[in-house]
Amino acid sequence: MVRTTLVQIDNYGPWTVTPEPRRETDLQALQSSIYADLSTAFGAHESLVFFSRFDNVVCFTEDVSVDEHRAVQRSVGNRYPVTVSMGVADGETPKEAVGRASALVQNEGSAQDSDRKERLVSDLSGTDSLQVAHFDIENATERYTDEIDAYGCHLLVERAGLALMEEMWERDATTFFVGGDNYISVAPFLDADEYGEVVAAVEERTDVELKVGVGEGGTPAEAGMAAKHGLEDSRNGGGRVEFY
Amino acid sequence: MVRTTLVQIDNYGPWTVTPEPRRETDLQALQSSIYADLSTAFGAHESLVFFSRFDNVVCFTEDVSVDEHRAVQRSVGNRYPVTVSMGVADGETPKEAVGRASALVQNEGSAQDSDRKERLVSDLSGTDSLQVAHFDIENATERYTDEIDAYGCHLLVERAGLALMEEMWERDATTFFVGGDNYISVAPFLDADEYGEVVAAVEERTDVELKVGVGEGGTPAEAGMAAKHGLEDSRNGGGRVEFY
Amino acid sequence: MVRTTLVQIDNYGPWTVTPEPRRETDLQALQSSIYADLSTAFGAHESLVFFSRFDNVVCFTEDVSVDEHRAVQRSVGNRYPVTVSMGVADGETPKEAVGRASALVQNEGSAQDSDRKERLVSDLSGTDSLQVAHFDIENATERYTDEIDAYGCHLLVERAGLALMEEMWERDATTFFVGGDNYISVAPFLDADEYGEVVAAVEERTDVELKVGVGEGGTPAEAGMAAKHGLEDSRNGGGRVEFY
Amino acid sequence: MVRTTLVQIDNYGPWTVTPEPRRETDLQALQSSIYADLSTAFGAHESLVFFSRFDNVVCFTEDVSVDEHRAVQRSVGNRYPVTVSMGVADGETPKEAVGRASALVQNEGSAQDSDRKERLVSDLSGTDSLQVAHFDIENATERYTDEIDAYGCHLLVERAGLALMEEMWERDATTFFVGGDNYISVAPFLDADEYGEVVAAVEERTDVELKVGVGEGGTPAEAGMAAKHGLEDSRNGGGRVEFY
Repeated sequence: MVRTTLVQIDNYGPWTVTPEPRRETDLQALQSSIYADLSTAFGAHESLVFFSRFDNVVCFTEDVSVDEHRAVQRSVGNRYPVTVSMGVADGETPKEAVGRASALVQNEGSAQDSDRKERLVSDLSGTDSLQVAHFDIENATERYTDEIDAYGCHLLVERAGLALMEEMWERDATTFFVGGDNYISVAPFLDADEYGEVVAAVEERTDVELKVGVGEGGTPAEAGMAAKHGLEDSRNGGGRVEFY
Repeated sequence: MVRTTLVQIDNYGPWTVTPEPRRETDLQALQSSIYADLSTAFGAHESLVFFSRFDNVVCFTEDVSVDEHRAVQRSVGNRYPVTVSMGVADGETPKEAVGRASALVQNEGSAQDSDRKERLVSDLSGTDSLQVAHFDIENATERYTDEIDAYGCHLLVERAGLALMEEMWERDATTFFVGGDNYISVAPFLDADEYGEVVAAVEERTDVELKVGVGEGGTPAEAGMAAKHGLEDSRNGGGRVEFY
Repeated sequence: MVRTTLVQIDNYGPWTVTPEPRRETDLQALQSSIYADLSTAFGAHESLVFFSRFDNVVCFTEDVSVDEHRAVQRSVGNRYPVTVSMGVADGETPKEAVGRASALVQNEGSAQDSDRKERLVSDLSGTDSLQVAHFDIENATERYTDEIDAYGCHLLVERAGLALMEEMWERDATTFFVGGDNYISVAPFLDADEYGEVVAAVEERTDVELKVGVGEGGTPAEAGMAAKHGLEDSRNGGGRVEFY
Repeated sequence: MVRTTLVQIDNYGPWTVTPEPRRETDLQALQSSIYADLSTAFGAHESLVFFSRFDNVVCFTEDVSVDEHRAVQRSVGNRYPVTVSMGVADGETPKEAVGRASALVQNEGSAQDSDRKERLVSDLSGTDSLQVAHFDIENATERYTDEIDAYGCHLLVERAGLALMEEMWERDATTFFVGGDNYISVAPFLDADEYGEVVAAVEERTDVELKVGVGEGGTPAEAGMAAKHGLEDSRNGGGRVEFY
């Protein structure tokens, strides 16, 4: 069982153009500051936080209580010109959990409903442990960053990432870009063969070679750190798929 | 002519795993804080700033001097545990400018070379004006955000975005996700027919309908704000492509 | 019993002038960002955090474990160019607790010792509840902010604040400026007569009239919120000293 | 002539307790984040920014235009739940400039008037150069930080600071705490004898020995950096008062 929190900014689209469109660099600074604060606050509770679409942030929050969610929600409301609603749900797989968390928020009203404000809804049945996979691109700096232009790299990372997201989603895992050439999945308990198939499929579709470290643990932070160590093993002479 | 700045974090990959892997939420908070600060600092100089891969941030910096770049670079070095190098170049198109800015940084050493630190290199010939296009997805909230799960939306926005980025790159434009269902291009001076072709191509490839506002101006902020007004015109009964 | 954490930036003075003096606005942004993060992180654990001298931040951290402190310390180290050491100690009074926390840090080495880095030392015996007092100046906006110049107000608030700090320190309480015309004390369990004496003494010394709300609770956040409600009672027709 | 900007948060006091008192750590994080952003934004324009009372921030903004002020004001409004009003004025001395800037803001309405929102008023006649003095306490780390408890140090720095502020204000200079044991004055063009008298007066009143570096320049950042170099000269064997 895995716990997912969907954090959705209330009525954000309309706010960005009311009374007239707001300057883009201000919006970028606002969104990334909120995301930095969510990372700090949920990070203090051993979670993982992904920016996803920035106005919809997806968190994995094993063991984080509803009261602790409320404290984070209140803090955003006290520090920013916008508020957030949250849905918190447990599921057998990340796919199921994110589906349930999304439905909880949607049941409260539209993302652009000005009456829906600071809702916090949850449907919790308990969690135990989870699996995290940390992917990156084989020799990305030598092959790409130092060789081709920055936008070519950007596109290449996007293409490989989309293929990876689609392959993993078919296996009920949610995968997010985390910067550089890195992608992190919260996955059901896939085995090494399945990761091998995913890596092969991405290479077949995009010509980009990935490697991956996989870790498990009682909290997202613990499983995520194990995945990072697995990836280090891969970098230091290990295989393309390394469980830690 | 358009001016592009590539901001690259020095030796970032190695730093994230030295002496051992650092916690992901800390890295996310760090990256997004640096990006928020770059948005604020270059935003004060009428620029546009895109997170791209977070360790490689792409900025459009018409009229921003080398000294003003140096002040931003110094401020990052004084406030964060990492430093940045910058390449600043002018080009006939965004594609050409980003290529030149990338080459300037690459010539200084690898992104993972511990001896390359806080370089600032430029090749400036002067700029005049530029075109910005602001895309979003037709009725995204009603059709997707309020209807399907958050990760399904995430994937859909990624797919449409990648198709858009590829179509625009063929036309020498650089396009970046800016949150929600929004994408912003800095483009050579494309006309309404070309934008119509791009929107049609994305729909054909992904089934997602885009609309776009287009603006021009002497600074990225000015052109970007005009593009937002064009998009508002489209939302308020205008066509799928609206020049402002 | 009350728990105090002294957070001291390691070797900060030398860092600010190495290799040459750093720009003041960068240092101000750095210090206040670290303080904002400490407020967010300890605030998530029901604490109170005071900027004190910025390079020495004083926190009241009832019930916050050593592991939770370590997570905050690690996060600062991962996000900023400086590190922090921490001393955590319990005491019968705030004065005793801050004395013990200070001694723990001092025993690890000088604040300007380049070998002392990221120490975390504690001496905990358990806590139960504490008292917080929230002071402000009677009619500060009408009498001062709207009437005299900003620096005159600044000086007046400083004078009243210093008198208040000294009067409370004689009673084993630690008192900090928190912005505007507000001061917060973490106090041993003083009674209404003692607060009346303090308010009278400050008026006698500086001609500034204070009022105060007093609250008690199991955590600093709870006691602090009760104190705010007491102050609201005072504003709404209550006396100069209001227990909640 | 010196230019001062008073930045005042609109209707802040009432906001902090509406609909009920907000958590103190949230308010501290909010205030210090706004201050960090003001430091970054005005710092990009070679200014100096002092937190003063946090809801009233005092800036020295030689050469910063009204339009540039408006961009900073807009950015705060787009990123925070509160707005700011600004008064910008030139004066023969810092005292005169801060008086004029304060009067401009006061004329727009009370700091707690809910109808006064995002005003920007200015009265500019041109500026030329200014003098900045950077004070710190002789051997503060060895004598105090490493020897006595953190709150005892806090009180000692407050006492010396208040005496310094009062002595300098009599000489038409505005002086602010900037962290640690450091104070910065923006001063009319005082000479070495006058600084000697100030340092002697503070020692007589509080037993605390100060030293000071003094610099002059066309912008606050330039004069402030010269003052820091003067203070370094004092640290490295120079006298108690060093002009750079």
